[in-house]
Amino acid sequence: MSLIEPRTLKGFRDYPPALMIPREQMLETARRVFRSYGFAPIDTPALEYAEILTGKGGEESDRLIYQFKDHGGRDVALRFDLTVPFARFAAQHIAQLGTPFKRYHMGPVWRGENTAHGRYREFWQCDFDVIGTTANAADIEIALVIHDLLTALGFERFSIRLNNRLVLNGLLESFGLADRAVPLLRALDKLPKIGADKVREEMERTARVSSDQARAVLHLASIQGDNASILDRVHAEFGSNSRTAEGIVRLRELLAVAAEAGVPPERLSIDLAICRGLDYYTGTIYETFLLDKPDIGSVCSGGRYDNLASLYTKQQLPGVGASLGLDRLLAAMEELGLLQAARTPVPVFILQFDSARLGAYQNLARRLRSSGIGVEVYPDAKKIGTQLQYAERRGFTLALIAGSEEFAHGVWKVKHLATRSETVVSDADLIEYVRSKLT
Amino acid sequence: MSLIEPRTLKGFRDYPPALMIPREQMLETARRVFRSYGFAPIDTPALEYAEILTGKGGEESDRLIYQFKDHGGRDVALRFDLTVPFARFAAQHIAQLGTPFKRYHMGPVWRGENTAHGRYREFWQCDFDVIGTTANAADIEIALVIHDLLTALGFERFSIRLNNRLVLNGLLESFGLADRAVPLLRALDKLPKIGADKVREEMERTARVSSDQARAVLHLASIQGDNASILDRVHAEFGSNSRTAEGIVRLRELLAVAAEAGVPPERLSIDLAICRGLDYYTGTIYETFLLDKPDIGSVCSGGRYDNLASLYTKQQLPGVGASLGLDRLLAAMEELGLLQAARTPVPVFILQFDSARLGAYQNLARRLRSSGIGVEVYPDAKKIGTQLQYAERRGFTLALIAGSEEFAHGVWKVKHLATRSETVVSDADLIEYVRSKLT
Repeated sequence: MSLIEPRTLKGFRDYPPALMIPREQMLETARRVFRSYGFAPIDTPALEYAEILTGKGGEESDRLIYQFKDHGGRDVALRFDLTVPFARFAAQHIAQLGTPFKRYHMGPVWRGENTAHGRYREFWQCDFDVIGTTANAADIEIALVIHDLLTALGFERFSIRLNNRLVLNGLLESFGLADRAVPLLRALDKLPKIGADKVREEMERTARVSSDQARAVLHLASIQGDNASILDRVHAEFGSNSRTAEGIVRLRELLAVAAEAGVPPERLSIDLAICRGLDYYTGTIYETFLLDKPDIGSVCSGGRYDNLASLYTKQQLPGVGASLGLDRLLAAMEELGLLQAARTPVPVFILQFDSARLGAYQNLARRLRSSGIGVEVYPDAKKIGTQLQYAERRGFTLALIAGSEEFAHGVWKVKHLATRSETVVSDADLIEYVRSKLT
Repeated sequence: MSLIEPRTLKGFRDYPPALMIPREQMLETARRVFRSYGFAPIDTPALEYAEILTGKGGEESDRLIYQFKDHGGRDVALRFDLTVPFARFAAQHIAQLGTPFKRYHMGPVWRGENTAHGRYREFWQCDFDVIGTTANAADIEIALVIHDLLTALGFERFSIRLNNRLVLNGLLESFGLADRAVPLLRALDKLPKIGADKVREEMERTARVSSDQARAVLHLASIQGDNASILDRVHAEFGSNSRTAEGIVRLRELLAVAAEAGVPPERLSIDLAICRGLDYYTGTIYETFLLDKPDIGSVCSGGRYDNLASLYTKQQLPGVGASLGLDRLLAAMEELGLLQAARTPVPVFILQFDSARLGAYQNLARRLRSSGIGVEVYPDAKKIGTQLQYAERRGFTLALIAGSEEFAHGVWKVKHLATRSETVVSDADLIEYVRSKLT
């Protein structure tokens, strides 16, 4: 029989333990933080009716969607993000679930992207939102969650950049340019990349605003300083517009509550140039940068929107949420040395020195597990050298060895695999000793 | 604009929090147990080249596979189980990973099944295997993992039924019927459903064995008693065949090591009628029954196989593993009252009594979270009645309330939502008080 070549599909990849252990740890940490705020998990199917998913991001985006006919001839599609399925989910279930509704959702999404730039066609997203309320308390909570996510993942040096679309929208309104917000924001979003001159040019060209108007927008976006002085200046210069004033009030309250809740103030920065390209957002905007890896871009972004599910229901569902950039964070953590190169999820290895003693090895293993210490027992009574080589390659911390001599004396040899040093410990003291070496 | 009807695809379902919270808890418990034995997580893509997946389970099975052409015109398919992708994964990566290799894999699979019997077309599987060794220590470990999974999930009354294909294969060999094993086992697998007479009839018809031979197989399968006496009788009657004898030795060692490791012996039962229909298995066989819900069938099943990945590699990869039946277990846990009907993942609710105090509420919330206690702050300063109604509906345990009077006295009102009783607790004692009420 001829063999089938074992390979993954173009644009897809396997997750062996060295990739999967960190992804699982990150997802677990995120789940713990979400839950601690009362966010509840949901899941939606990978496959949806195509009409649910298509037409949401324009033709370009539709081309990336995996679409086909199912066994019943239905037009179906694989989800390309978690936002559109959440909109459909909310429209369908919100009456039973009630509002406010706080959910997180983690799962794979699929896009038939060009793979030239190392992009994968399957990747995980991790979204969290509060819907059914316009209260600023929800906006504030999203900032607190982002903060706690980053610290729980082991980051200390990061900055959550905050803006509020109302500030700019108020300015546009006072110019009579409210209807030009979309092209203006798209142009402004490019400020860090193409610079002020080119942004102004684009604003004049695509939004058909005057040079003075474009300058005013750019002036607003470029106000610098500490948080209080930025907000004071915006208030002084533009606060006569009620939308702008409301944006300022909401940002001020966010900063004050976060500080009182115990968030170090230096981690929250007002940045009026942050606007995100999406038309979707209408209020608070969040982006999060690692100070030691600013070049990778925002690792947690989101914002407030007026209406989640207008395509599926007449019920207005305002909300606020953000999305954790798992792949970016994993890459950053790897580069910053925050990930251990683990190929085993447990620290302790028991050699099978004498196959007749398997019961004793498994007995010790179960005692260690009951104490919360993970342990692997080698399945074959191979040569000690072979077993130790396996243990070192997998990255265990301690190897426990006992043969008839050790059993006769009621002791275990404990080998520290990093230093290859050895200690003899009595069976009675072993669990405490192992614990002390692992912390 | 006309609305799109928000609905899930036929055969698919959403997981709102009431379904998703228990699924997440079960997956987390399983992960904790797998890891404690040194099993490492892996993941594989949802989509594979169709040639990897098709032709594995016959035409009937191929018809259930979701297949289509991707953007590059490749024939692709959604995985219908986790075994075939693992075989492909192992063939591709085992040289780098080394053996023995212990993995678990949890994820959704897709089958275009008939939905008449409440079957879903997307469901999760949860597999764990040790590959690259024929050692009985691995077979024993799988039984220990199954045991610890069930107890970690909260079950006490369950039975892991054990058999070894070698026992029956030896008998067939001694009759010169080794080549009839597949149809004989398929018939035998139906014993609990159709009874001995019909099984014998089927054996005679499909495996073309004599009536005496069929009787002998049924006689072996029906040997009853405690574990030791079953194995003694089989040894006495059939142990002259070396395969049968080896099967008996392996089962005896499994029972002895598990007992020495601390597994209550009554949870492991030799059952020679357990054979599982699959041709694939060649050694130890596992099925697991809940004594209070035997009718739902086995909740964790598996066995030893000679070669995992023969379709993709010439390297022989023997292994042993099992699969946890998540959906059956969730259904059983619900019926047995082992699941709480949780619609919130946290126990504590803080009312937003006074919107000017939001910072103080969030400060308390963060202090509680630092102590490991999850807490939700209501986002709007709505009427107390509305907020309490929300809290009761979501299923919180405690509600914390403070307005200017409480702040002036440095206290919180603690409302026990089940009894609606109220206590006043000082801010300094609050965390300890809340903790005492939650355990």
